[in-house]
Amino acid sequence: MSDQNSKKALVIVTDGSEEIETVVSVSVLRRAQIDVTVAGITLQNENYAKCNRGVKIVPDQSLSNISNFDIYDVIVIPGGLNAAKAISSNPEVQKLLASMHQAGKFVAAICAGTLAIKSANINKGGKITSHPIVKADLENEYSYQEDRVVVDNKVVTSRGPGTALLFALTIVELLLGEEKRNEVSNHMIVASIL
Amino acid sequence: MSDQNSKKALVIVTDGSEEIETVVSVSVLRRAQIDVTVAGITLQNENYAKCNRGVKIVPDQSLSNISNFDIYDVIVIPGGLNAAKAISSNPEVQKLLASMHQAGKFVAAICAGTLAIKSANINKGGKITSHPIVKADLENEYSYQEDRVVVDNKVVTSRGPGTALLFALTIVELLLGEEKRNEVSNHMIVASIL
Repeated sequence: MSDQNSKKALVIVTDGSEEIETVVSVSVLRRAQIDVTVAGITLQNENYAKCNRGVKIVPDQSLSNISNFDIYDVIVIPGGLNAAKAISSNPEVQKLLASMHQAGKFVAAICAGTLAIKSANINKGGKITSHPIVKADLENEYSYQEDRVVVDNKVVTSRGPGTALLFALTIVELLLGEEKRNEVSNHMIVASIL
Repeated sequence: MSDQNSKKALVIVTDGSEEIETVVSVSVLRRAQIDVTVAGITLQNENYAKCNRGVKIVPDQSLSNISNFDIYDVIVIPGGLNAAKAISSNPEVQKLLASMHQAGKFVAAICAGTLAIKSANINKGGKITSHPIVKADLENEYSYQEDRVVVDNKVVTSRGPGTALLFALTIVELLLGEEKRNEVSNHMIVASIL
């Protein structure tokens, strides 16, 4: 029963994904007992995603092998400019992002990953943030913020590898509450100011 | 020529390594143009290390395939309690850590990884820190500190996933100076207080 009740997250990786943002998201959510699936798309080497700084991560699944997305409470899109472009132009992911948002699930993106929020036509006009390198691509269609994490209408966005812990802990708090966030944060020895 | 002059780092991974500490170290050092080799030891699946929260990382090399360690300027030992125990009891790594320290290279460990500093008999009596869970194993033989990063006699130690960015940026500063550290930190949008 407890397994059925646990929260579930889907993290998308591809070649060029920013490895800190990817791994911090996966690891922090799992520390909160969230059931995380790392799903790969369009990988050059089918065995792993070669991330932005060359770290090679083996996905748990290929996204195309997942048949039921209704079980997920949040989808997470890491950054890495080339990865974000690949994810933003992937019809399968676009459709998934839009349907998850429509179903009232959380959609979370960090760094250049925020481009995928735009290309999926989610929460246009709402508050958003991203890495400064893609600000110009977003500010005309969103209310662009400079905060380290922005939550608006179940869309969670953040800025870069240096904000990844705060981003992941915010997702934990949104899904499981402040007490769980603090428990995870304290054990990881996170700074009081992120 | 520039390649020969660039700094080089060796990061040890094994099953159970803490994935945030591993990946933050690798990625931040590479962002500073440090040439990083991720070396695996004693892996159950020869293709990847299954980290502490299940993230699977493909090493660049097996440690036993590396013949020349003189080229490395720093060796980094991530945490994860079971991994730290495996690394601390691995004769090859112990010998390597001791010889690197003797040669005046930097030896860096985070979280439970600090156990490997002790078992390699490095800088006994000096200042050290670690995750609180292994404090009792270290405080009798070292001057135990509660700082987030401690540098003493070319031994760099730190506390947990929440201090991994500060740990990695400190290594960057020690190898390449404050300007490079700030350049990397600013681009990653790291908080002013870590």
